[in-house]
Amino acid sequence: MYGVILAGGSGTRFWPTSREQSPKQLQKIVGTRTMLQNTVQRLLPLISIENLYLGTNHQQVIETLRQLESYEFISDHLIAEPCNRNTALAIGLIAKLIIDKDADAVMAVFPADHVVANPENFIKTLQKAEVLAEKGYLVTLGIPPTRPETGFGYLQQGAEIEDGAYKVERFVEKPDRPKAEQYLQHGKYFWNCGVFVWKASTILEELHKYAENIYSQLEAIAGCIQNAKAKPAYLELNEAGRDLFSSLPSLSIDYAVMEHSSKVALIPADIGWNDVGAWNSLDDVSEKDSKGNIISGNVLVQDCNNSIVQAQNRLIAVLGLKDTIVVDSPDALLVCAKERSQDVKKLVESLNENGHLEAKQSSTVNKPWGSYTVLDSGPTYLLKRIEVLPGEALSLQSHQHRSEHWTVVSGSAEVMRNKETFHLKNNDSITIPKNTKHRLGNPGLELLTIIEIQFGHLLDEADISRYEDRYGRC
Amino acid sequence: MYGVILAGGSGTRFWPTSREQSPKQLQKIVGTRTMLQNTVQRLLPLISIENLYLGTNHQQVIETLRQLESYEFISDHLIAEPCNRNTALAIGLIAKLIIDKDADAVMAVFPADHVVANPENFIKTLQKAEVLAEKGYLVTLGIPPTRPETGFGYLQQGAEIEDGAYKVERFVEKPDRPKAEQYLQHGKYFWNCGVFVWKASTILEELHKYAENIYSQLEAIAGCIQNAKAKPAYLELNEAGRDLFSSLPSLSIDYAVMEHSSKVALIPADIGWNDVGAWNSLDDVSEKDSKGNIISGNVLVQDCNNSIVQAQNRLIAVLGLKDTIVVDSPDALLVCAKERSQDVKKLVESLNENGHLEAKQSSTVNKPWGSYTVLDSGPTYLLKRIEVLPGEALSLQSHQHRSEHWTVVSGSAEVMRNKETFHLKNNDSITIPKNTKHRLGNPGLELLTIIEIQFGHLLDEADISRYEDRYGRC
Repeated sequence: MYGVILAGGSGTRFWPTSREQSPKQLQKIVGTRTMLQNTVQRLLPLISIENLYLGTNHQQVIETLRQLESYEFISDHLIAEPCNRNTALAIGLIAKLIIDKDADAVMAVFPADHVVANPENFIKTLQKAEVLAEKGYLVTLGIPPTRPETGFGYLQQGAEIEDGAYKVERFVEKPDRPKAEQYLQHGKYFWNCGVFVWKASTILEELHKYAENIYSQLEAIAGCIQNAKAKPAYLELNEAGRDLFSSLPSLSIDYAVMEHSSKVALIPADIGWNDVGAWNSLDDVSEKDSKGNIISGNVLVQDCNNSIVQAQNRLIAVLGLKDTIVVDSPDALLVCAKERSQDVKKLVESLNENGHLEAKQSSTVNKPWGSYTVLDSGPTYLLKRIEVLPGEALSLQSHQHRSEHWTVVSGSAEVMRNKETFHLKNNDSITIPKNTKHRLGNPGLELLTIIEIQFGHLLDEADISRYEDRYGRC
Repeated sequence: MYGVILAGGSGTRFWPTSREQSPKQLQKIVGTRTMLQNTVQRLLPLISIENLYLGTNHQQVIETLRQLESYEFISDHLIAEPCNRNTALAIGLIAKLIIDKDADAVMAVFPADHVVANPENFIKTLQKAEVLAEKGYLVTLGIPPTRPETGFGYLQQGAEIEDGAYKVERFVEKPDRPKAEQYLQHGKYFWNCGVFVWKASTILEELHKYAENIYSQLEAIAGCIQNAKAKPAYLELNEAGRDLFSSLPSLSIDYAVMEHSSKVALIPADIGWNDVGAWNSLDDVSEKDSKGNIISGNVLVQDCNNSIVQAQNRLIAVLGLKDTIVVDSPDALLVCAKERSQDVKKLVESLNENGHLEAKQSSTVNKPWGSYTVLDSGPTYLLKRIEVLPGEALSLQSHQHRSEHWTVVSGSAEVMRNKETFHLKNNDSITIPKNTKHRLGNPGLELLTIIEIQFGHLLDEADISRYEDRYGRC
């Protein structure tokens, strides 16, 4: 079986931990691994790593690769979409890649940011779905509802196809509360969890039938796929492909195909699924203390109940809280009534409207070569911690308006300054005057950490002239 | 009239804004000036600056001087106590200094960290108290209670002495709730606000009578007062004086004298007094938005009521809070139910018990020459922003275990390194290897700001050998 993980989401309900540029699937929302790492790990008993495909977007591709590097991930299985066009196009394009390799392939599609508490049942259910998919069905997993949830779509169970598998009577959009209560009591409604199993050929046929505008461009877009210039490698679209991709409608696979097709089947799946849709979802999936609190990091808790407190690099002391969420990050803090978790999304919209960069970007910014973190700033200086991954290097560049002072605090650096090359180790410093061509690289086997002091009267990321770049950013 | 401000408190109820080393009176808890600055300003219509005395402690003396520098404060009117021995000894010692200068002096004593909303009535009340003090009374101001407060001591009004001034029937310790309710209804009980007016000679006589152990040492301790070596100057005790001071009992003036003396008088004082004893006191003294919130700094508020939110350098977003306190600082955050404000004190005790340095010290540490702020740290480095005041200099020093990299980002620096002297300006860097004698000074007229990267495997403030120091710290 082939696996497809759709990891391009940019949810904002987990702000400030997740940001537009570092969304939920790339965060450790539950436990010690990221949601994406957990999603891959969960599939490996059934799907070998070389049969796994990932769709993400160009902003997140480097961090996605980094998080999966321990899997020796195969570079031609990760495609970076130029923009978000929802699931129908992403699924169609990857189905095209798979079918070109294996005409009879069965593929399973998974969101990258859900929790499955019962992975054994999950695998068993997928095996059952595979059998049905071989017969030409579009199989969906239906989660038995445990509450009158108004945030999910529902599947209504139809006639039995075979033992434990049913036709789908209809797809139901997110219901209002009274409807959701009816569905819960009725017993034959299931949550649509976004996990699908089908033959690549079947889904392409159905896209052909119900979403001709998307289907008709898949071949052309697939022809525009190229290896990105960046290292580690991934797939991207050339300019023609990006234009084509962007011109297509943004449709979910549910809306484009599943709601119309007669081939849809349902397997009820009791797999401990949770979409972890907002901070209060942690109540269902995280460990609690004796008073119902979920605590992580450097936190002193006194007389709190049913609260969620996540510290990062600073101490948090909480006293007498009830049903309250406190989530810290280096540059932004959320304090929120737990019952308002769903509205964090709107809060982030307000932050965006008010021009708060903290809505989009965290203080640590990922780059192809590593990352930087802004530590302090003043009218004429900006202070950064720069981390360069082993073997990587920044572009050959110069700045018009700033000089830079670098001190190596761990690892070793190779610095080109004009025509000279310097080999710096721990405790060495170097100054790069403005208008001086320079390049910083990590020739070593361990992480290089540098403290950078930028000095100048105009300090702007855009003040950069690139002369050479191994990630194609010239 | 002479004024005495007792500014040596180290309250922890305003943590994390106030710390043991930077307490409430030195913070901008209400408005744009610190509590101490407001206290001085409020007295100036009645007491000229050269008749004003301050008692503080050695940990806070530099910051106290800095906050009052605009007043051209007279250096021999600020005494730094070697340790906290409560108000009886502090008042006795300053009474001794005053009487040696002016045998008939009337002195008024004030806490440094209270709010007076009606400063005109305050001045009028003090003038009335002065007349009574001239007649030999120990005059206290009594605040008409507005609620059954259990956190204050009370004064019971006795027979009238003259228009609007009364004998005190008795001093009452902090009452329980039913008693506090009786006192409120009774109408002749007043809050003891810690403001006293008397002749220096009267209080010394009464100390002689009721606290002989303290009184008998005042002359000797006063003889041990010397000008501190530090600049700007202040008064301190020599070693013998410190030993004597420390050996005396820690007694409040209420307990030592006022509860026993027959000379105590009371003037009811309707002056809009508030002791601002805990975060929830801000409700009485700060401006609110239409939903009863008190907000300061970079805060996005959605659907919150009656909450207090104070941001510093990071964004805070709050959603759906009620009666909640959120106070941020660079290294520690408090989130607290408003009704639990009084328990912040206990919370800080817990932090201390658990070895959290954040209980005592903030990320910016004041020094005689300026301050430093820790910005980042790693296993082998520590990053600081160092601010040196104009004309000041650090000690001539060396470190055994670390080298230091300095980059000037504003102002100008004079750096001695071994026998060489360097004049550094904006954008200049210098490295100080370990075991190298060095000194950093600010020869300019503006603030010097330096970014310091300490590198070493043992990074400890205690790793310092001082060879010369203009603040007497060798």
